[in-house]
This record gives sequence, structure tokens and C-alpha cells, in this order.
Amino acid sequence: MLEKENQAKLLSLFSEAQNAIIYLKGGSVIHRYDTDFEYPFRQESNFWYLTGITEPDFQLILDLEDKTYLLVIPRRSASYSVWMGYVHSENYYYENFAPDRIIYNDQVESYLKRRKPELVYCLNQGQAESIKSQNLEVNTETLPEALGYCRSIKTEAEISKLTMASKIASEAHILCMESLQPGMFEYEMKSIYDAYNTQHGLVHPPYNGIHAGGANSAILHYVLNSSVIRDGDMYLIDAGSEYEGYASDISRTYPANGKFTPEQAGLYDIALQALDECIAGIRPGVKMEDLHLHACKVILDGLKDFGLLKGNTSDLLENNIFALFFPHGLGHFLGLDTHDVGGYLKGTSKIDRPGLRFLRARRTLEEGMVLTIEPGIYFIPSLLQPAFDDKNKSSFLCIDKIKPFMKFGGIRIEDNILVTGDGHINLTHVPKTRKDIEEVMAR
Amino acid sequence: MLEKENQAKLLSLFSEAQNAIIYLKGGSVIHRYDTDFEYPFRQESNFWYLTGITEPDFQLILDLEDKTYLLVIPRRSASYSVWMGYVHSENYYYENFAPDRIIYNDQVESYLKRRKPELVYCLNQGQAESIKSQNLEVNTETLPEALGYCRSIKTEAEISKLTMASKIASEAHILCMESLQPGMFEYEMKSIYDAYNTQHGLVHPPYNGIHAGGANSAILHYVLNSSVIRDGDMYLIDAGSEYEGYASDISRTYPANGKFTPEQAGLYDIALQALDECIAGIRPGVKMEDLHLHACKVILDGLKDFGLLKGNTSDLLENNIFALFFPHGLGHFLGLDTHDVGGYLKGTSKIDRPGLRFLRARRTLEEGMVLTIEPGIYFIPSLLQPAFDDKNKSSFLCIDKIKPFMKFGGIRIEDNILVTGDGHINLTHVPKTRKDIEEVMAR
Repeated sequence: MLEKENQAKLLSLFSEAQNAIIYLKGGSVIHRYDTDFEYPFRQESNFWYLTGITEPDFQLILDLEDKTYLLVIPRRSASYSVWMGYVHSENYYYENFAPDRIIYNDQVESYLKRRKPELVYCLNQGQAESIKSQNLEVNTETLPEALGYCRSIKTEAEISKLTMASKIASEAHILCMESLQPGMFEYEMKSIYDAYNTQHGLVHPPYNGIHAGGANSAILHYVLNSSVIRDGDMYLIDAGSEYEGYASDISRTYPANGKFTPEQAGLYDIALQALDECIAGIRPGVKMEDLHLHACKVILDGLKDFGLLKGNTSDLLENNIFALFFPHGLGHFLGLDTHDVGGYLKGTSKIDRPGLRFLRARRTLEEGMVLTIEPGIYFIPSLLQPAFDDKNKSSFLCIDKIKPFMKFGGIRIEDNILVTGDGHINLTHVPKTRKDIEEVMAR
Repeated sequence: MLEKENQAKLLSLFSEAQNAIIYLKGGSVIHRYDTDFEYPFRQESNFWYLTGITEPDFQLILDLEDKTYLLVIPRRSASYSVWMGYVHSENYYYENFAPDRIIYNDQVESYLKRRKPELVYCLNQGQAESIKSQNLEVNTETLPEALGYCRSIKTEAEISKLTMASKIASEAHILCMESLQPGMFEYEMKSIYDAYNTQHGLVHPPYNGIHAGGANSAILHYVLNSSVIRDGDMYLIDAGSEYEGYASDISRTYPANGKFTPEQAGLYDIALQALDECIAGIRPGVKMEDLHLHACKVILDGLKDFGLLKGNTSDLLENNIFALFFPHGLGHFLGLDTHDVGGYLKGTSKIDRPGLRFLRARRTLEEGMVLTIEPGIYFIPSLLQPAFDDKNKSSFLCIDKIKPFMKFGGIRIEDNILVTGDGHINLTHVPKTRKDIEEVMAR
């Protein structure tokens, strides 16, 4: 029972013999607005982590005093079986999930009345509502902190799932790379990517997926996927797979027609160098913000050589010029969530600096962490136009050289990396040198 | 501006010169639990109906006194444009959606303070919260009732969208019918169906889609789509398309290997006869519950002839024996929601009778209504086992004949029908006779 290992890890963080319990609600089906439209049920990640149960409407109580695992199961009506096809017995849950004890959801109130814990650890105020209505004291700070810490260091079982998630996503990415032709719509590429996953039984996307041609590739959170991908444009795909709950998150950018122009090649190689050097630097003890700043430096040097920037690199760094072209974070943890928990431990705050403030993980790397590295170079009009008019910033910009690129879009290259004891393993296997990409696209 | 026609239709239902307003909130992005996982944004249906706007975070005020259309637009931060790619001007909304006046979301409170309506019509308590906090009187009964009434009679523009939704879904269904082979997994069929839609730019499914082989096809709300479809089994597909907001919802059931066995053929023809006769009966003035009962009668007669039931049909009807094999409603309205609004007008309640109580629309049919007709025959162990042990029910059942079918699953055939002035038009174009299905599957 892999989840028992996760439970033990969590319990080890709480002081012994407290008269306290941990209380978690699993997910329920989410409806769209006030309708009966149901989003496909996907278990809440913390609950999945601690129980392995993928059905809706369960709850979990971990008693810190005697370390018992109490599973709260829903009392299903007879008609549930008609509509959903099953109502499992208590035995089914004992056998498959090994709780110490099972009660039904209508028994939680009386259980708590008898147990009378001095403190109940909950995930958040929403989850604590039913507890507070019983006048029990609630703490919503410690549990998310502790779960974030546990979930940020992956077990072997988790690593093998993350490896599979990245493997299947890699295959889907290669299929997309082989399939792209100028004139296709962005949603046609989405269709190819998503179908490969569904075909393999992976029905929950880890996130919606970005399929962006030309200027759309500079929209960081592009959601429409509705334009035609034109000959001469670059195409950016940012899409992952969820395998048994675990996410991958991979980006590639390549020319719609399969051949890089000299301009595309020049910019592409800067982003690739940033990616390669950051990955090469990954080992225990390294700080995420240092990797982020390294990527910034590579990008600044590259853009200087390419002729878009001027001045010396330390001035460019100091004036945050990198954030005009690379405004998002270098990477984030991967796990049961795509933007996985544990990126900021208690006492760590965001860095109040352009670009860096969007870093989703500010940790010193440790063995067992899994993260994305995803540097990018973008031409975002709403960032660059104001910079052209800013006296300080514009002094570093070769404005006449930049202007022809205002509809270029952007380039992002993203791999998924496991931190090992003495370095790292790249879980992503999608061509990324120009030569390899052009070979795949020529097939 | 088609939505102005919808607004006028709605306003015509409210008495003139009231010192009252209608207040609606459009949809916002829905997150999964306490994470940043976003479900793809899809506008709230009532808001879409009245404005045509498909962006998140808008609000609408219709003033009943002077009939003005006030659009409330969100004040987007500068960074919105970096992440989402655009911030439209007020002019953009004036030009595209023709409101009489635009205010920003941070001006609603002061607007209401000045306007001081005696009554505010809202959709539901959730939407009314911000209004109530201003001590204005709220009515949440009239507006959903009025919108349900308006939306249940489709305009020409709506009918053409519903026609397209059914056309594209029909094409996807035919592709599935051509593709099925024994040994495929249910999710592979889902992949084929969904990909056809995404390929054509239809990215929001109207509902999740059921792909069920063998016994799974008797699970009315089957969601797993995870089993292998075996040679000799039937396969049930219940899947639709959403075209410009409007849903189709089509079901077919056919043998995995492309040839009906005599047993499959016998049961299939009963369901098809129920479908065909119900559709033939559709015209203005007909009551949905009468159609439902007609389907029940066809099914009872058919199952008697097939040898699974005994007794005379009126006794079988009176004892609700039909609901053991056909436990759900015959159909529902289609529109901006798959289970569209307006099925029950004020004063109409559900019929407290097995099967019929699940009828989602209990209206007398009128020109311009669009609805599904979806009779089915299922072998659902959790319904049949208790019936075998029930003295009254079991007297109608040929238990020994039924038992071999306990893992058969079910058959559902579903078309989408427009009610016209003198009859109906079937919007669905997917083969449904055994001969036509076998021909398509032999390709």
C-alpha cells in the first residue's frame, strides 16, 4: 500500500501523542455553474496522495494520538447503483485501501463528538467548515505546509509514474512534430495531441494545453487554440499527460514548415542554450532562483549577440531587462498537480523582482524532486511598447532591430527533470536541437 | 445582433414600467478544488443567450423601466494582456455587442446606489449575494422561470446552430461506427469521437460522453470508459457536440463485431420501434409524458413477444414493469445546455412514478422546441434482482428467460428532433436500422 508510506511520511512531521486529528475531504463532482454539466471527476490531489482512492465523496481522518487511519465512506442510495453501476461493500475498501477503521459519512459528527480532539488539522477554510460547526479548534496552516513538504520529495513509486507521464507525453509531442503542416488550425494540433493520450487511456489532461502559431505563441496563457498556423510562423506546443494522477508538462517550439529561418534559428538556439545549461546545473544543493538568473544571463548574452540588446550584461541583469523577453518563472515542481505544491516552504517569500516573482518554486534542490525547466524568449507587445517609451529601459534596447519581431511570437522549450543524488535525469524525450527537429519534421 | 432578439423576448415577459432591474453574472473561470488547475472557460448559458459574450467576468443589467442594456465589463490589469494576449477597449464591446451603456465591474455598487431599484431579478441565491449585500430586494424565482420559457422555444438562429451541432456529431458517430473492432478499449472509441470534434474546432464537449461495451452499457451514467470491448458484446455510444454553444446528444448501440446476433437483433428492434414511433408522434400539442408512456408500451409489447415478460400489457403498464427495463426519461430539451432549461413550467411537478419521474421535460410540445428522444432497454442487476424477489413484480417476469441477459448490458438509441408547425424534423443523421449499421461497419 504505497499510500501508507505517504501517510507515515506525513505523520512523522507531527509531534507525538497530540490529542489531535488530521481531517481531509476528498473531491466531489464539480458542476458548471448552476447546471447538471459535470466535469469528469478527478480526485483531490492530497486525498489521492494519502489514500489512493479515486472515487468522489470520501473523507479521511488520521488520528495523531494512536496513528489510526479512519476512512469515511459515503452511504450511497440504492439508485446510485442503477446510475453509476456499483455500490462497493465496506470489505472492498478494507481490502483495497487497508484503513484501520471505516465509518459512513453520516457518522462523522457523532464520531467527532465522542473523540473530542483538542485540535483538528485541515487543508483550508472550506474543508474546515463542518469541523468548525462543531466548535472544534481548527488549524489550516500546518497541514498544507506539511503536505507540500512531503509531496515535494517523490518516492520511487511516484517517480515511476512521473517517468511514464513524461514518456507518453514525449510520444504525443513527436507525433505532433511529425504531423504539423502550414495551414493547419491550432485546434487540429490539439486534437492530435489529446487523441494520443485518450487512446492510451489517459483521460484527464494535467492542464489544458497551449497550441499557438505565430504571434499567439507570445501569449503566455493562450487558451483559444483557434487560429491557422501559417507557413513561415513558429508553432509553440505546451502540453502534458497525466498518468495515474501524475503530471508531465513539456513545451517545444518549431517552424510550421519544418525549416528554421536564420532569425528563427538564432533566437531558438538562445532558448535552447538556456535550457541545456540550466538542466546541466541541476543537482542537490542548487537554488532555483540561481538557475533562473542563469537562464536570464544566457538570454541577455544571446540577445546581445543577436543584436537586439546593448550594454554590458551586469547592467542588463540589474535593470531586469531579461524580464521584458522572459517574464515568467523558470520552472515549477511536478507531481499530482502540474504546478505541484511545496515550492515555497514556511518563511520563504516570493522575490519581488520582474520575472523572478513568478517563480513557482523557490527551494534548494534535493534528491527526489521533479521539476520543469522552461526558459523562453517572447516578443510581447504589451511589455515591449512601454519599455520603448521608458528612458532607462530603452537605453538597453536596439528598438529598430526589435520592431520587426513584434509579431514573431515566442519560443519556449521545456523538459521535466528528476533531481538525483549526484545530478539529475531528464524524463523528457522529444527532439530539441534544430537538426533533430528538422529531421523529424521531414519524415 | 441575435442576442437583442433574445433580450426583447425576455423583457416582453416582465410587466412594463416596473422600477426593477434584471441582474446576471456571466461565468468566471472554474478551478479544480484549491489548485490553479483551470477548466477551459465556457460562458454561463443564460449570459451567453442574452449577450453573446464568451469571455469570463462580465455582468449584465437590463433595466425594466427604460429597457436599457447595461453591460458590466471587467477592469483588467496591465498584466492580463501579458498572460492572456489582449485587453479590449470599451469601443470593442460597443461595436460587437451593442449595449446601450458600459460600466466597469468596480462601478456596479455605485450604479446600484444611484439607480435604487425596488426589485432586482436574479438567477439564484449565489448570483444575488452582491445585490443583497446592498440591501436591495431580490427575486430569484421569476428570472430562471422566464429564461427557461424563452430558451425552450428556439429562434431560427438557434435552430441553425443546433442543426450544425447534430450534423457534426452525426459525422463523428459514423466515424466511430466505421472504426469499431472487437478488442478496442472504450477510451479508444472516446478518442476517435472527441478528436473528430476538436479537429473541427469544437473544443467544449456538451457532456462527457459514454462509451460502454457489454455490461457497462447498462450503467446509465457510465463514466469510466476504461474496459475492453469484446467480440460478441454490444457497444453503446452516447456522445454529442457543442457548436457555438448549442448541444447535440446522440446515442447508438451496435455489435462490436459488426453483426447482430438473433438475441441482439430482437432487443434492438424493440428499442428502434419505440424510437421511431415516438418520433413519428412528435407535433405541436403532444405531451412528453404521453410519448414516454407510448415508448413504455412498445417496450412492454416487444419484451412480451421476445419472451421475457408475461401478462397483459395494461397490467404491465399499471405495475410499472417498463421501468425495470427503461428506468430513465424519454428525452429532454436541447439548447445551450445539454439538459436544457424550461422542461418544467411553474406549477408543473414531476410525475411520481418509476421511470416517468426522471422525465426532464414535461411540456406540451410547441413549434421551435428541440428535444432528444432516447428510449432504451437495459438489464440492470440492481433493478432486476430485487424485482425477482418481489412477489407482485416477479409474476410478470419470465425469470429464467431474463437471467441469461443479466450481463447483456443495454441498448439506447437517441435522435435530436426539432418540433415544426405541423410535425418535426429529425436533425440526426446516423444509421440506425440493423441493415444500415451492418453496412457501415462492413466498410
